[in-house]
Amino acid sequence: MRRMEDKVDLASALASFDEAFSPRIVARMNDLKIAVVKTRGEFVWHSHDDTDDFFLVLKGRLRIELRDRDDIELEEGQLYVVPRGVEHRPVADDEAHVLLIEPMGTANTGDAGGELAAEERWI
Amino acid sequence: MRRMEDKVDLASALASFDEAFSPRIVARMNDLKIAVVKTRGEFVWHSHDDTDDFFLVLKGRLRIELRDRDDIELEEGQLYVVPRGVEHRPVADDEAHVLLIEPMGTANTGDAGGELAAEERWI
Repeated sequence: MRRMEDKVDLASALASFDEAFSPRIVARMNDLKIAVVKTRGEFVWHSHDDTDDFFLVLKGRLRIELRDRDDIELEEGQLYVVPRGVEHRPVADDEAHVLLIEPMGTANTGDAGGELAAEERWI
Repeated sequence: MRRMEDKVDLASALASFDEAFSPRIVARMNDLKIAVVKTRGEFVWHSHDDTDDFFLVLKGRLRIELRDRDDIELEEGQLYVVPRGVEHRPVADDEAHVLLIEPMGTANTGDAGGELAAEERWI
């Protein structure tokens, strides 16, 4: 677990693991976890009733599919905040690296659970 | 003011203004503002008693000077969270572009006030 006193190099953090859809927490800010994740392929449809969901693409492209709305196509340096309660599915045709911000304790698969549900892990 | 339904391109947001130390809000997540700022030169020493302070360097270099601790030198792709209550001063010898996250209503100059205090402005 990284000490709060340290700075975080996002590229180094991302280079330290390869598993897809397995977020790694790199820092804490107030009650939030700051995490990096590698996305490959389709995640599960899910929503979070009690929090917005922050995505910033650091590398590659990420498509955030939304029910009943146009998809959001994110490239490097682009961010999107999925409003709470909105069902969404992150999809990366190729690998993408993404910065995530969520309250501590938020499940990555939201209301959906399932085999892609990941424990909260620090880098 | 950008609608929450839109994605945000950070480079475009940063290209839309030039003023130094004048954060522009690009998105909201829960009770947080996500902002970009251009830093040039020395900001003021300040602290925030009630919140940690998130910095992610998007371009250039930013030094976060801390009282009684070693400076934190951030390059592109590196982040640091200043713990609440810790007095700090951001300094950029050349221009840097930085992503900030703070609770809505947090003053950029924290407890210090002064002429660099900026109103909350959306891009």
